[in-house]
Amino acid sequence: MIETPIQMRFADVDSLGHVNNVNQQHYFDLGKNDYMLQVLDLEPQRREQGVIIVAMQTQYKSQIRFHEPIVIQTSVQAVGHKSFTLLHRIIQRESGEVKTECSVVMVAFDFVAQHSIALPEPWRQRLEADLAATR
Amino acid sequence: MIETPIQMRFADVDSLGHVNNVNQQHYFDLGKNDYMLQVLDLEPQRREQGVIIVAMQTQYKSQIRFHEPIVIQTSVQAVGHKSFTLLHRIIQRESGEVKTECSVVMVAFDFVAQHSIALPEPWRQRLEADLAATR
Amino acid sequence: MIETPIQMRFADVDSLGHVNNVNQQHYFDLGKNDYMLQVLDLEPQRREQGVIIVAMQTQYKSQIRFHEPIVIQTSVQAVGHKSFTLLHRIIQRESGEVKTECSVVMVAFDFVAQHSIALPEPWRQRLEADLAATR
Amino acid sequence: MIETPIQMRFADVDSLGHVNNVNQQHYFDLGKNDYMLQVLDLEPQRREQGVIIVAMQTQYKSQIRFHEPIVIQTSVQAVGHKSFTLLHRIIQRESGEVKTECSVVMVAFDFVAQHSIALPEPWRQRLEADLAATR
Repeated sequence: MIETPIQMRFADVDSLGHVNNVNQQHYFDLGKNDYMLQVLDLEPQRREQGVIIVAMQTQYKSQIRFHEPIVIQTSVQAVGHKSFTLLHRIIQRESGEVKTECSVVMVAFDFVAQHSIALPEPWRQRLEADLAATR
Repeated sequence: MIETPIQMRFADVDSLGHVNNVNQQHYFDLGKNDYMLQVLDLEPQRREQGVIIVAMQTQYKSQIRFHEPIVIQTSVQAVGHKSFTLLHRIIQRESGEVKTECSVVMVAFDFVAQHSIALPEPWRQRLEADLAATR
Repeated sequence: MIETPIQMRFADVDSLGHVNNVNQQHYFDLGKNDYMLQVLDLEPQRREQGVIIVAMQTQYKSQIRFHEPIVIQTSVQAVGHKSFTLLHRIIQRESGEVKTECSVVMVAFDFVAQHSIALPEPWRQRLEADLAATR
Repeated sequence: MIETPIQMRFADVDSLGHVNNVNQQHYFDLGKNDYMLQVLDLEPQRREQGVIIVAMQTQYKSQIRFHEPIVIQTSVQAVGHKSFTLLHRIIQRESGEVKTECSVVMVAFDFVAQHSIALPEPWRQRLEADLAATR
């Protein structure tokens, strides 16, 4: 499990006075990139082999106000042949409250050939080791 | 069913050369606001009674490139006591291809009292009429 | 002079109830891309020869509220050896009020060699024709 | 002078492979909010008396790549009757290179009455003290 503190931006908050649901997705991205860098040793930049998001399921449990101290916790939930699933949780750092929960299915993707591929073996090994450690 | 043409912005496209998954959520918002205005006669601005998103489920089926002509189709899927569910589809206007599909559960919310409320009767009637028309 | 209607997004408006100054820059981009497409016949996507912004000067004259009907007017102000200057104006369509004014200096740029270049001759001719037409 | 480290987001980078000029404005906002909090003891949220941006002048000197370590340095440049001017610099932390420079004129604003006001005396004192310290 990787924990990423979030630097909130003023424009993340919309006219309803809470962090807009769209901008919360940027927070998930920060968690995802951190996870990919730290667990998969994978830079999220343009490269031949990367990942592409195919599905996402989000539950908004509680509103996030400006300057609330929040972190993203990211862990692996499942590892398949071509895909893996990450779980992101936005946590209020002081109260421990789960604000939003998001599970994301990602597929290994060849950006040159533009099609999905089997998970490269080193990624699979790291994901499965992390999955075992989580349980 | 409401159809909303999307005006793509240059910064919607990320370094992978496709519309970023986060920015696609802005497109759903455009569909949602259009639906709320046209079907529910409801301005999406700050007011006492509004809606809040509680859950979202998204499938990314095909990448969206810069300047692809796209529209959002928005229809109601379910109407509950306090909540209703909208289905958004991002469609490539020329090919008819469904790029992304997103179902969103929204709850009627009192922004002064800060808690959920039963769907106001006029909203329920309009949603149910639209649901019947869709079937 | 090119006029581009703007499709406002819900999250463009911040917690102060007006279109955030950052998001107004997306509107300038829409004007700039329209201008480049219509006057310079230039797609704003990744390509060998493009333009890069080197300076920008913005005056915020009046706040923009949600759902105010706005357009961007874009015209050329100056043409140099390697650079040209565009003027963007965000206009309230009904009142004609100028909300924001932004002048942008852009330099022709070789994205392969990663350095500035002289304005390609076809661009210069079109920019100068447009500049003459404006006066 | 206040220094704010920036947490870059994946979608800050556009299809040209550099941080989009629009998203760089979010970085200035982070510097501005930090300055307002630390020097003026002022929360950037909705309140009766705040500030509003009236003018901005930006020079883009060098492109910013994904995951380049950057900070914003923010200092006061001028203090007027109703307004003050901040200078933001985006600095590459390792090389010290100035990537972008932005000077912003802000006016004290009454968000209830919706008009500009004289700088509240405590703000003026802190701004002038900081201006003196900078010189």
